[in-house]
Amino acid sequence: MNNNILEIMKIERMADRFIKSPYKINNIHEADAELIDLGGNSDSYLALTTDALVEELSSGLYDSPFLIGWMLATINFSDLAAVGADPLGLLITVSFPSDQSDEFIPKMTDGISDACKEAGSFVLGGDTNEGKTLSLSGCAVGLVPKNSLMMRNGARKGDKVYLSGAAGLGSVYAFLRLFQPENKLPESLYLPMARIKEGKLLRKFATCAMDTSDGVFHTLDTLMRVNRCYFVLHDEWQKMLHPIALEVCRAQGFPSWLSLASVHGEFELCFTISPEKEYDFLSEAARMEWHPILIGEVEDGFGVGVQTAERRVEIDTGMIRNMSETVGSNPDKYFKELLAFARETGIER
Amino acid sequence: MNNNILEIMKIERMADRFIKSPYKINNIHEADAELIDLGGNSDSYLALTTDALVEELSSGLYDSPFLIGWMLATINFSDLAAVGADPLGLLITVSFPSDQSDEFIPKMTDGISDACKEAGSFVLGGDTNEGKTLSLSGCAVGLVPKNSLMMRNGARKGDKVYLSGAAGLGSVYAFLRLFQPENKLPESLYLPMARIKEGKLLRKFATCAMDTSDGVFHTLDTLMRVNRCYFVLHDEWQKMLHPIALEVCRAQGFPSWLSLASVHGEFELCFTISPEKEYDFLSEAARMEWHPILIGEVEDGFGVGVQTAERRVEIDTGMIRNMSETVGSNPDKYFKELLAFARETGIER
Repeated sequence: MNNNILEIMKIERMADRFIKSPYKINNIHEADAELIDLGGNSDSYLALTTDALVEELSSGLYDSPFLIGWMLATINFSDLAAVGADPLGLLITVSFPSDQSDEFIPKMTDGISDACKEAGSFVLGGDTNEGKTLSLSGCAVGLVPKNSLMMRNGARKGDKVYLSGAAGLGSVYAFLRLFQPENKLPESLYLPMARIKEGKLLRKFATCAMDTSDGVFHTLDTLMRVNRCYFVLHDEWQKMLHPIALEVCRAQGFPSWLSLASVHGEFELCFTISPEKEYDFLSEAARMEWHPILIGEVEDGFGVGVQTAERRVEIDTGMIRNMSETVGSNPDKYFKELLAFARETGIER
Repeated sequence: MNNNILEIMKIERMADRFIKSPYKINNIHEADAELIDLGGNSDSYLALTTDALVEELSSGLYDSPFLIGWMLATINFSDLAAVGADPLGLLITVSFPSDQSDEFIPKMTDGISDACKEAGSFVLGGDTNEGKTLSLSGCAVGLVPKNSLMMRNGARKGDKVYLSGAAGLGSVYAFLRLFQPENKLPESLYLPMARIKEGKLLRKFATCAMDTSDGVFHTLDTLMRVNRCYFVLHDEWQKMLHPIALEVCRAQGFPSWLSLASVHGEFELCFTISPEKEYDFLSEAARMEWHPILIGEVEDGFGVGVQTAERRVEIDTGMIRNMSETVGSNPDKYFKELLAFARETGIER
């Protein structure tokens, strides 16, 4: 198994040169959003995150102004959802070329505004600049009750692994958009939503959580390393995958679980629940008409595997993650390598 | 006087499409950082700001990696200083081209780290991406006691106008860097610091405050519009301007107050103090070995003027501000228009 994760090395190369704040609760890699002790009388931690749209714009993956705005808000709110925060709002930094069309800005702004409404939140402020290329970043802030801390660490042997909803849509959206633009998914079928209200329930129950913005296997790889545990997944792809993802994979002749492996994920939450709390959790979830999907269990060990009817298939999620770092900027090469890897495992041969 | 400020129109074109958060204390344009009510038992407001380096990089104004990192932190902390916040920390979003040199990142990181130490603060987290061009934005957060709110509005007739320190260095730094690179200022003479500790004293005394990051006249124009007042400035340039700014202007044959008018400012604070509190304020400032500079007074009316021994010269600060929007991306044209404008006023003929 590949344990030299390029993304981790890149982040630590910078982070190691900074002094850690005494107010910061989480260590590096331990949470989707930074958790800050506000001191004083506050009964909440501040949750803070920043995320930019870079490769998604340069590759043409997001090109409609409404979608660009929507995604800028969603990628940031999703990190708040993964720590169970109540969002306070979003700051945006935008840089436009001087020849940006007149319709672009209002449409992008509407995308941001609509995604904020979905998250029950607001744009608090921002910064606008004139640049050579379109460039967008956001920063979301929220509050988490001190007694309901939810981070990426905390999973224990025997815990159940869940997804907040069916996955794989982000992956097939990207595949069609980049390789078969004539078949691309209508934007209205994509537009993912940050799982804010689910995160607020989860903070009372989950032992760990992370969003699937970089794909389910990237998420499992991170959680497995932070928790030093082993995840065994069921091979029930019909249950786990979004119907559109299943259909696109079938039509293209791809193993359907491939749509969990690409780096363009959804904004579902992947989380673990102890068996003792599972019943209460599912009852409360059902009450809000939310039906999380059981995908596996936590075992002793270190790694990720898929249990089929016949055998246990080990998945080198470290290698999958590094692939998106090394060839991710060349979508064609990236997709071919990923497909070859998926076929080699022999799952769904 | 020009009252159609392009920068304001550009910001409002976006902001008008967003719903204002019920937790947000300030209206648009009313504060350098957004002030958010955290609810619950908190005795502080959250102060939040985001600022990016865009034109500063594309123009080559900042080119050393250390300076780039330093400025990324300083531009964000300076907005916290202007609302008198105690900083909690900084989030950074960086996007590098894949061929960025190996020395660049550690040097830039050291610049961020050193500026954080100067501000008594920390990097809390961030996001790294691979992009076509270098792109950097930051987001700073802090806390302000609810009983010491300091914003851009609140100035009253009769208040004294101060700068936290001598100005004009940012302007001459930019002039030399862009037009006479053979004479450029050593980086060590520039490296501006966010006025965090001064801001924390000011929040107890000032009726309004704003930083001079876009130049002193840009700041006065904003404050004059937010407060609907008139600022009369003394023509004591020797006292008001940084010795290097005075010397560069003398050597180049420019009116020295020109260095208050360009859009590349310093990170001083411009603020107003009521005459009743002036003595106590100056005493406390002196105790921390800080000597703010009196530059003028607030009068009834609407505008900005300079009082010379002979006459009152009206300055169309709205026109100065629009100039940086319309021709700011062409430094040569911008500088020529600004110089022509400055000479026309007849101050320091």
